Amino acid sequence: MPVQQKALVTGAAGFVGSNLVDHLLETGWEVVALDNFSSGQREFLVDAARHPQFKLIEGDVLDRPTLDRAVQGCQWVFHFSANADVRFGLNHPFRDLEQNTIATYHLLEAMRAQNVKNIAFSSTSAMYGEAEVIPTPENCPLPIQTSLYGASKLAAEGLISSYAEGFGFNACVFRFASVVGKRYTHGHIFDFYKKLKANPRELEILGDGTQKKSYLDVKDCLRGIMKACFEGQAKYERPRYGVFNLGTTTYCQVSESAGWISSEMGLEPKLNYTGGRQGWIGDNPFIYLDTKKIKSLNWDTSMSIEQAIRGTVRWLAQNEWILERRQ
Amino acid sequence: MPVQQKALVTGAAGFVGSNLVDHLLETGWEVVALDNFSSGQREFLVDAARHPQFKLIEGDVLDRPTLDRAVQGCQWVFHFSANADVRFGLNHPFRDLEQNTIATYHLLEAMRAQNVKNIAFSSTSAMYGEAEVIPTPENCPLPIQTSLYGASKLAAEGLISSYAEGFGFNACVFRFASVVGKRYTHGHIFDFYKKLKANPRELEILGDGTQKKSYLDVKDCLRGIMKACFEGQAKYERPRYGVFNLGTTTYCQVSESAGWISSEMGLEPKLNYTGGRQGWIGDNPFIYLDTKKIKSLNWDTSMSIEQAIRGTVRWLAQNEWILERRQ
Repeated sequence: MPVQQKALVTGAAGFVGSNLVDHLLETGWEVVALDNFSSGQREFLVDAARHPQFKLIEGDVLDRPTLDRAVQGCQWVFHFSANADVRFGLNHPFRDLEQNTIATYHLLEAMRAQNVKNIAFSSTSAMYGEAEVIPTPENCPLPIQTSLYGASKLAAEGLISSYAEGFGFNACVFRFASVVGKRYTHGHIFDFYKKLKANPRELEILGDGTQKKSYLDVKDCLRGIMKACFEGQAKYERPRYGVFNLGTTTYCQVSESAGWISSEMGLEPKLNYTGGRQGWIGDNPFIYLDTKKIKSLNWDTSMSIEQAIRGTVRWLAQNEWILERRQ
Repeated sequence: MPVQQKALVTGAAGFVGSNLVDHLLETGWEVVALDNFSSGQREFLVDAARHPQFKLIEGDVLDRPTLDRAVQGCQWVFHFSANADVRFGLNHPFRDLEQNTIATYHLLEAMRAQNVKNIAFSSTSAMYGEAEVIPTPENCPLPIQTSLYGASKLAAEGLISSYAEGFGFNACVFRFASVVGKRYTHGHIFDFYKKLKANPRELEILGDGTQKKSYLDVKDCLRGIMKACFEGQAKYERPRYGVFNLGTTTYCQVSESAGWISSEMGLEPKLNYTGGRQGWIGDNPFIYLDTKKIKSLNWDTSMSIEQAIRGTVRWLAQNEWILERRQ
């Protein structure tokens, strides 16, 4: 990486975003952090705020003047802000479209206006829907969208690749499996932890517990992002546009995960399953990504799913304030 | 089809939309036609307007109250309004997103509010980008979007399939090759015709003339749509969601097409190629759809590409007013 590069991180106070901010600062970047703190946590930027190379802009990714200001002078934009509430998308159908697709458009336009042309984007494995091919490669059969969240991220990918094609942007898109680890603020580990604090004797699990998921620790995730952005060009689908799955080479069942969480908390709850192959409408009962492409860049995970999940539980135990904050 | 069904057609004064309106009226439907006449032509609805089962609503697909009114009492919505200007998408990057994606969201919400749950949607083969597999099947490898138009249509598909999954909508999505025929108002035949009227001795052709395209006559296109919507359920990807390519089983090169157009006009112009494998940025040099799925419903084209293109030229010759209208 050239010395003194400057990056904008959107969603900088979020789970992955704030870890990325720390990582960039540690590796010599100047960082502009943008967040509206609607779901981001100020606590996650406390360390970063002490750094001389850090600047916070409190504002919204839908606000073009804010974006213009935030993007100015940057070489890279790490676009990590999102409405990440997959499960309740149907309760507010505009939210994913607005915050994930339309916001991405405004960001791309701000970048274009300021001649900032490098973008990394946090997409999602949810856009694979109920994948036909498992493990699912980046160029799997065109998936049917089963969630508004997945649809909104796929739409953002389409905008970004069109900007790469039409306006010469250089883009790396990352389709994450579920990411866990330090500053994890939503998802099943969070829900299970919270339920077990309220009632340590029983745990209700949505679905039949056989849903298979792949979990990646945020540290491994960030190493993958950096590899792909700065060493991955040869692996791009198009000259200026690369898509990379980021996940583990194994998966676990929700019932196993419930066991590890309980054990890490020193509990032995009775597990009650609500039944059905999906936890909720749009839930993908089997998410497992083919990660050959990112691995060809000499990347690998540094821990097992069990280690990643147990580590996440320990972080939650040390940061129980987050349970109150995120209802 | 049950007697006295009522359908909303959006983009009803457009090329495909107005042909669909006529077809629905001829086959016993009650039709609500919605158009804002930004690119639709009033002349295209002159015949329909004489029909007692026809009602016109002049309004915009982005206007929710208009949509609520238009959708009321319908069993089906044929969503055919679009910004169909693929080539100049980069000149106004918000237009495709707004008119193709966001408009579809508003329409789906109006339908949900009025409990109208059947939708047919005109998507596009442009969303296949530069397809890896040719002929391209509906479940081809996940394509990289190369145009804002394709990206906006794929995004709309994602919204529609999410509504099928989450809200029990019943949806048929059609990925068209280029459609030609009666009331054809834009595309290369239109451009070539216009250029040849201005200068019958020479014709400038964008690209090297080897771009391969598949053209479908609008009548064949409409027969396919009706087959898929009302006989296609068994072929759906998901219980309530089906995607169908609509195209011919052959393709032609732009240079061949230029020859047929010239010959139909009684001209022998010198053909001047601007060069390059694409006509413009985002142009897909080879579009050829795998149509096995729609054919399995006992559908086929009734004419060759040459016949379809020559017929289109004859329609343009009889309706030269459209050349002035569409700049």
